[in-house]
Amino acid sequence: MIKVGIIGATGYTGVELLRLLATRTDVEISVVTSRELQGTSVHRHFPNLRGHLELTFAAPDSEQLAACDVVFYATPHAVAMKSVPKLFDAGVRIIDLSADFRIKDVSLWEQWYGSEHSCPALVAKAVYGLPEVNREKIKQAQLIAVPGCYPTAIQLGFLPLLENNLVECSQLIADAKSGVSGAGRKAVADYLLCEATESIRAYAVTGHRHHPEICQGLNNLTESEVKLTFIPHLTPMIRGLLATLYAPVKSGLDVSSEQLQSMFEERYANEPFVDVLPQGEVPATRDVKGSNRCEISVTYLAHTNTVVVISAEDNLVKGASGQAIQNMNIMFGLDETTGLNNIALLP
Amino acid sequence: MIKVGIIGATGYTGVELLRLLATRTDVEISVVTSRELQGTSVHRHFPNLRGHLELTFAAPDSEQLAACDVVFYATPHAVAMKSVPKLFDAGVRIIDLSADFRIKDVSLWEQWYGSEHSCPALVAKAVYGLPEVNREKIKQAQLIAVPGCYPTAIQLGFLPLLENNLVECSQLIADAKSGVSGAGRKAVADYLLCEATESIRAYAVTGHRHHPEICQGLNNLTESEVKLTFIPHLTPMIRGLLATLYAPVKSGLDVSSEQLQSMFEERYANEPFVDVLPQGEVPATRDVKGSNRCEISVTYLAHTNTVVVISAEDNLVKGASGQAIQNMNIMFGLDETTGLNNIALLP
Amino acid sequence: MIKVGIIGATGYTGVELLRLLATRTDVEISVVTSRELQGTSVHRHFPNLRGHLELTFAAPDSEQLAACDVVFYATPHAVAMKSVPKLFDAGVRIIDLSADFRIKDVSLWEQWYGSEHSCPALVAKAVYGLPEVNREKIKQAQLIAVPGCYPTAIQLGFLPLLENNLVECSQLIADAKSGVSGAGRKAVADYLLCEATESIRAYAVTGHRHHPEICQGLNNLTESEVKLTFIPHLTPMIRGLLATLYAPVKSGLDVSSEQLQSMFEERYANEPFVDVLPQGEVPATRDVKGSNRCEISVTYLAHTNTVVVISAEDNLVKGASGQAIQNMNIMFGLDETTGLNNIALLP
Amino acid sequence: MIKVGIIGATGYTGVELLRLLATRTDVEISVVTSRELQGTSVHRHFPNLRGHLELTFAAPDSEQLAACDVVFYATPHAVAMKSVPKLFDAGVRIIDLSADFRIKDVSLWEQWYGSEHSCPALVAKAVYGLPEVNREKIKQAQLIAVPGCYPTAIQLGFLPLLENNLVECSQLIADAKSGVSGAGRKAVADYLLCEATESIRAYAVTGHRHHPEICQGLNNLTESEVKLTFIPHLTPMIRGLLATLYAPVKSGLDVSSEQLQSMFEERYANEPFVDVLPQGEVPATRDVKGSNRCEISVTYLAHTNTVVVISAEDNLVKGASGQAIQNMNIMFGLDETTGLNNIALLP
Repeated sequence: MIKVGIIGATGYTGVELLRLLATRTDVEISVVTSRELQGTSVHRHFPNLRGHLELTFAAPDSEQLAACDVVFYATPHAVAMKSVPKLFDAGVRIIDLSADFRIKDVSLWEQWYGSEHSCPALVAKAVYGLPEVNREKIKQAQLIAVPGCYPTAIQLGFLPLLENNLVECSQLIADAKSGVSGAGRKAVADYLLCEATESIRAYAVTGHRHHPEICQGLNNLTESEVKLTFIPHLTPMIRGLLATLYAPVKSGLDVSSEQLQSMFEERYANEPFVDVLPQGEVPATRDVKGSNRCEISVTYLAHTNTVVVISAEDNLVKGASGQAIQNMNIMFGLDETTGLNNIALLP
Repeated sequence: MIKVGIIGATGYTGVELLRLLATRTDVEISVVTSRELQGTSVHRHFPNLRGHLELTFAAPDSEQLAACDVVFYATPHAVAMKSVPKLFDAGVRIIDLSADFRIKDVSLWEQWYGSEHSCPALVAKAVYGLPEVNREKIKQAQLIAVPGCYPTAIQLGFLPLLENNLVECSQLIADAKSGVSGAGRKAVADYLLCEATESIRAYAVTGHRHHPEICQGLNNLTESEVKLTFIPHLTPMIRGLLATLYAPVKSGLDVSSEQLQSMFEERYANEPFVDVLPQGEVPATRDVKGSNRCEISVTYLAHTNTVVVISAEDNLVKGASGQAIQNMNIMFGLDETTGLNNIALLP
Repeated sequence: MIKVGIIGATGYTGVELLRLLATRTDVEISVVTSRELQGTSVHRHFPNLRGHLELTFAAPDSEQLAACDVVFYATPHAVAMKSVPKLFDAGVRIIDLSADFRIKDVSLWEQWYGSEHSCPALVAKAVYGLPEVNREKIKQAQLIAVPGCYPTAIQLGFLPLLENNLVECSQLIADAKSGVSGAGRKAVADYLLCEATESIRAYAVTGHRHHPEICQGLNNLTESEVKLTFIPHLTPMIRGLLATLYAPVKSGLDVSSEQLQSMFEERYANEPFVDVLPQGEVPATRDVKGSNRCEISVTYLAHTNTVVVISAEDNLVKGASGQAIQNMNIMFGLDETTGLNNIALLP
Repeated sequence: MIKVGIIGATGYTGVELLRLLATRTDVEISVVTSRELQGTSVHRHFPNLRGHLELTFAAPDSEQLAACDVVFYATPHAVAMKSVPKLFDAGVRIIDLSADFRIKDVSLWEQWYGSEHSCPALVAKAVYGLPEVNREKIKQAQLIAVPGCYPTAIQLGFLPLLENNLVECSQLIADAKSGVSGAGRKAVADYLLCEATESIRAYAVTGHRHHPEICQGLNNLTESEVKLTFIPHLTPMIRGLLATLYAPVKSGLDVSSEQLQSMFEERYANEPFVDVLPQGEVPATRDVKGSNRCEISVTYLAHTNTVVVISAEDNLVKGASGQAIQNMNIMFGLDETTGLNNIALLP
């Protein structure tokens, strides 16, 4: 029985961790913390958990957390770094869904997240939790930085192209569309139904925090320097993230859709949660709603000598909480798919 | 291992049966039929099933179906009745999600469904599959008529009031709001996104097919004659059904919200899928999205001497496929909640 | 040229007033106030107004407002009453979209709105701005209390029944469904897209602030005492309000759908913004999106001896800003439909 | 008084023409045709027109149409070409919202639209109705081919860059997102609410019919050969089209966001319906819902030497019916904005 603690579980990644963990028989949710809702029943706040979880939100308590086998941080950025060191020293495994340990270049992190990092030493020890790249390291890790939602979909899409040195790395484009849950459960006017539904718009056009994270990951896959144009869009739906990726083929290379298809299928043949669609089918976010599956299609457009990759994930599952649990499964030597093989809700 | 067949599985109740059954280890989905899509991979039609089900749609074949332990009908109305008799005679258990065997008065059925019933004798043998009322009969049944979505929510809401003889049965009102999936996956202009989203409207104001079914069920609970005003509404969402029920308290009786609360809690104390909310909380369809749970609240309004009951269900789960599987579990002597304890997807 | 001031124009009724007034050639929008956004361009806050309005939000300034011919209050409740007296004394016409002057019984208002009323004397002078009832009084009025969104749809629906003494007034039921814009532009978690879309729920089940306002209006139409059960629902759409109304026919009366149809058509024959649908058609909120039209249908259900009236309006237009302007037109002796004859946006 | 006929007015561009024309005092809607709905009241089919238009759908009748000053075709592709010649010879002005006369290379048209063109001679005479490019020609035209929704937003976005010879024309990318109304009012399963809402997906990845039309328009602006990667996406909303455009700056050129901003503002300074947003603001489709305005932003990303242009329009207005009427206004020597200055519906 794995004893689990969840810190800051009042948002959407928090409730998603609870949804995916509460029915498992090999996991005991030991403590769920929230300063704000301390003393409130968790299912009063998240009624979908009625009958499945009889816990109240607790104040963060070091001893209780230190007694856990693994602690998930579902906190805003720049929160985890403050209490992770203590838990780390206590030997607890830590899976951080925030950005605090994702970027190895601490000064770059500080620039994008606007605060001083309080434990740079642990950044070096943290493993970036993208199993399709780092599975062996995850097995040994004590501290996992769970990738962001955009970085997951975009890295998985570009990965075979970069590993195979096929495209012009300095001219990558990622046009990404995210559901509104990506913004969290913050009471901000921009995300009101009346502001966000029946409309689509780009945001963070001149720079988004996930940009350095994505570039770090892509640069690890290739020797050329990656240059990426990344434009995220707010899409009128709750869940789902679709990344449409454009990459010009290196001059002199001869490619075809069939060849790309095989390359992608081989690369992901043993990946339980990356699903390369048959040629001619295209991903839709509804096909992965509530599941940990990432759907990918790849197409070669001869007239512009461009590869178009499309990847779809549920931003709260493969883009956050599902991937966090996938990491947990790997860390504890479990079957990687444990508790993650539920089928997407369609329609 | 229970061998399952599903007839007409190309619509929403079909894919929902598959979602709920495909990951079970005690069930083998043996055959999935569709005349129209014969030969097509099921997951080509329903991509959420990719990786979970490797079957193609088959033409309906009596022998293959007769070899099943149980066959679900997810067909339009007036289809099941044509082939049920043969399967029935072969000893197969049958769970019909359509309306063919719901109404005991065959002439009433014929009037509402506009066709002649082809096997009235089996109507008499069919058990109405509302476990909260008919659990013992379901255990013995060979043929189950799964209740409609509106009838489930409305009967569960009124039930304790009628059983306790508390309200004026001749003045019941059910104002019900259903998501668009209740209309099925038919390519009809009315249900296009551009027609149905960002709008709400009533329909079937002068009479809806579920009306006689609801009245039959309610009349079984009380000696007084039930008279029900039932107005369904098309609501701009995929899933979910909310029934707001109004019943005047019988004159001379003295009731309170507290007393009603206890009455409802006691009635449903042992029901795994009926959840009476604490006083002051109200059901929302999002709290049950994708789950088999039916949420109910009850309130007494003194100024009009009226009881207001609100019930929420997922019309495709407790209102259709989940309830069908709950019936299957009962029929096969399994724990009633097997495969049905997944948590609603929130947000 | 009518000089118009708008106080508190940063919410949805504010931007709707601006949308409906900014293109008029007989109106000059003179001042738009907001303490919070003082100095900000109005079209920076509401980009739909780009090219149509070159004003910045100003701090409320008595002299500037006193120089207007008419001032609209688009403020939260309990704000207008504080500054209305000064403007009233200055001879300015005032149209208040908030609840401050709607309820004649000041102690009842104080009970529901939780604050002491600061100018009860003006409550007596205020005219309730429902043109279909009070047109003559509106012509003479200096201070208008614009009806709430629910009260407008519900009163217009019940009105012919009560005026004709046809139904049992002590057993009226209004089951109403409102789009989320009815809650305003407040940054409250409940109205986030992720909380409010793809779900429907009731709220304020034990009592809503519009209840006394509706009852006051209905009681003015009949000698019997009105008793109303009123349950509002939050519906997953931006705009639109549908009220489904239930009224038992008085015992001994003989009614028919045809007779009701004629009665409704006659009552509203000369009303430019109340549209009784032909028998067999039902209102949908999409048919009135962005327009000042209220659609009504009436049906008699013999089996329960009940009249079902359904009314649909755009809660921000006929339910708020459009009606406010209709009042302005009447007060200034203009054609009542001036600036209000735009066609609903469909789809 | 301009006598107007509309052919095939049962779809979304048809009802949008009617919405924009029915309240005009300088236009008389003389005939509205539909074979299918012949004899039906137009407002029975489109209830938003109740009280605004008292016409029934008529069968197409040559004489009635020939008596019109202008006839709009709101028909599917390959319909208009069959009857346009006769009307053309009768001297009627024709505004075709379908694709029949958009592409000058008839064999290219035949290849993409899958039928033989029945009047190639008229293709040569047709003027492509993008006023921002062809205003002078439109004034003299008798036959207008109204641009498609994607071509409008994409051409307006790229236009200043190509006219100024600033970007590498062989590497243009257009990632476009359209609301579901772009697919028309066809009863096709893909566009059901339950299929299309709460999801986003690409389509026509290997080629879309608007691609040759866009390339034709862009090639007219520059001497270099344009190569365009164009990926359209189906977005879960009724109206709105957002195009995110990517163009690498020509090597050796030195650009900045400020310079681009000036260039765009100057280019569109006199265009009534193209609105270049101030730097730092980004278009959202909600800001133009129901209006003929196209919002554009331009940004230079130094790290990838790429210009990102974003344009937003209402696909049914500036992307179809509004633009058609803008053409009519120009053809008849009216103020170009007549009947088109209504403000977008927000929220």
